Amino acid sequence: MYIGIDLGGTKILTALADEKGKVITSVKLNTQAKLGVKKVIDNIKKSVEIVLKETDTPLSLIKKIGVGAPGPIIENGIIIAPPNLPGWGKVNIKTTLQKIFKRPVIVENDANAAALAEYIFGAGKRSKIMAYMTVSTGIGGGIIVNGKIFRGATGTAGEIGHVIIDENGPKCGCGNYGCLEAMAAGPAIARMAGTKDAVAASMAAQKGNKKAIKAIQTAGKYIGIGIADINNMLNPDLVVIGGGVMNIGSLILSPTKAWAKRCSLKAIKNTLKILPAKLKNNVGVMGAIALCMVGDD
Amino acid sequence: MYIGIDLGGTKILTALADEKGKVITSVKLNTQAKLGVKKVIDNIKKSVEIVLKETDTPLSLIKKIGVGAPGPIIENGIIIAPPNLPGWGKVNIKTTLQKIFKRPVIVENDANAAALAEYIFGAGKRSKIMAYMTVSTGIGGGIIVNGKIFRGATGTAGEIGHVIIDENGPKCGCGNYGCLEAMAAGPAIARMAGTKDAVAASMAAQKGNKKAIKAIQTAGKYIGIGIADINNMLNPDLVVIGGGVMNIGSLILSPTKAWAKRCSLKAIKNTLKILPAKLKNNVGVMGAIALCMVGDD
Repeated sequence: MYIGIDLGGTKILTALADEKGKVITSVKLNTQAKLGVKKVIDNIKKSVEIVLKETDTPLSLIKKIGVGAPGPIIENGIIIAPPNLPGWGKVNIKTTLQKIFKRPVIVENDANAAALAEYIFGAGKRSKIMAYMTVSTGIGGGIIVNGKIFRGATGTAGEIGHVIIDENGPKCGCGNYGCLEAMAAGPAIARMAGTKDAVAASMAAQKGNKKAIKAIQTAGKYIGIGIADINNMLNPDLVVIGGGVMNIGSLILSPTKAWAKRCSLKAIKNTLKILPAKLKNNVGVMGAIALCMVGDD
Repeated sequence: MYIGIDLGGTKILTALADEKGKVITSVKLNTQAKLGVKKVIDNIKKSVEIVLKETDTPLSLIKKIGVGAPGPIIENGIIIAPPNLPGWGKVNIKTTLQKIFKRPVIVENDANAAALAEYIFGAGKRSKIMAYMTVSTGIGGGIIVNGKIFRGATGTAGEIGHVIIDENGPKCGCGNYGCLEAMAAGPAIARMAGTKDAVAASMAAQKGNKKAIKAIQTAGKYIGIGIADINNMLNPDLVVIGGGVMNIGSLILSPTKAWAKRCSLKAIKNTLKILPAKLKNNVGVMGAIALCMVGDD
């Protein structure tokens, strides 16, 4: 059996799953990130105890524990100052949890874990090289090559949201200018649409508001250009695209697909598939379970 | 012993090398591409016969033959309509040469082969993930992961020159707009400098011509942004950058490095090394030899 832990800035979602990844039970607790590292670790511990107790499962039956945590993670298991967990400097969550549970722990940044979840359980099945992109408040991503997470030299590969789309574009949360995230994520859509958020922009667009429609289409165009950049550079066979913003539907997905095709090299204009993500809110915990299934590097 | 063949649009450069990649002898013939596929194959055959004869080497001592050919190559050994070899539709150069020589033949697109050459013989030694970029009339590239060429799903990965830098930018040879190649390769520098080519721009810059200096710095800036895109997406530990345009020196390399750092994510601003390529005109044939050394997938 496996335990998957989706460690988020506000919630901890912990699930017990069998070796095929089928969830047996799960529990959601508040992260209480503001109360510090020790409290968060305590809450993780509590969540694991709950799923074990509920199913009468002894810890000894747990083969691995997978953790999807806010990035960036630089070295195996060490979380370094994630923006979503304020006050965390450098925390070795892997060894900390291994000491508590005496089981092997695999830690991965949440976007990579989500990419793996889509590959194993979602839209990515059987793809050779899959790029995953999630568009919500930010734009995260991950790359799966032959069934494994492509981590890069220091573990940060797949930051698709930080491809520069327009060097003169708006400032991004990362400090640079004109990143895809700054041009096309939820806040960018709200800014272009003149609405309080992307959901309001989507509702306005449905009512025929031209500014909102244009804002969403423009974001789709930029996302498409970002996908073309991935395609030209990495030549994946599949891009899976999820996240709250993509729930807007074809108004954003159509320009995304059109521009991805338009800006891809001739030889690969028609080889790339773009599919919406299949997993929804549970993608994080499914990613943590997927980590257990494919093992560590 | 190995034979490496650099099949170019105007010249065929063929070398005989030992198993450590040391070149024993080499010969250069005209490709005569305009005379058709059969003539080109004949010229390849002739070049191999020359290096064998000159060194009294029987064909049976040749373990492998490597060929670097103009891209894009879609499937193993099959060249598809390369712009540099007009009139070639779909030619299976691998099986054609295997029939002639009765030796194993490995065919790879020339940019990937050059990347491998820099990894094995040049600036890339011991890097984990290396991106290679060559800036001349166009911008080519290749990606080496753990000592192997990263080909992507259909063999076109590494087309770094076709990352979109400015969607409103000038038209690229590939048909798209604002690709790095259209913004920063030799012709773009000449266009921005108002000179006949990039060499003239470089000479004018050396004499203090402000427009030429600005043109070269601007190209360097765009190349740097392209490298940051690679860095954010793939997280390599090394980018090796070669090609005639980079011979301009620090006037282009300094802004390249500065912008690559500036536009990279904080976590990896300082982990990426950017080195000038070590191999010069012989990078193509050394790449073909390198193909023999690392074997085929």
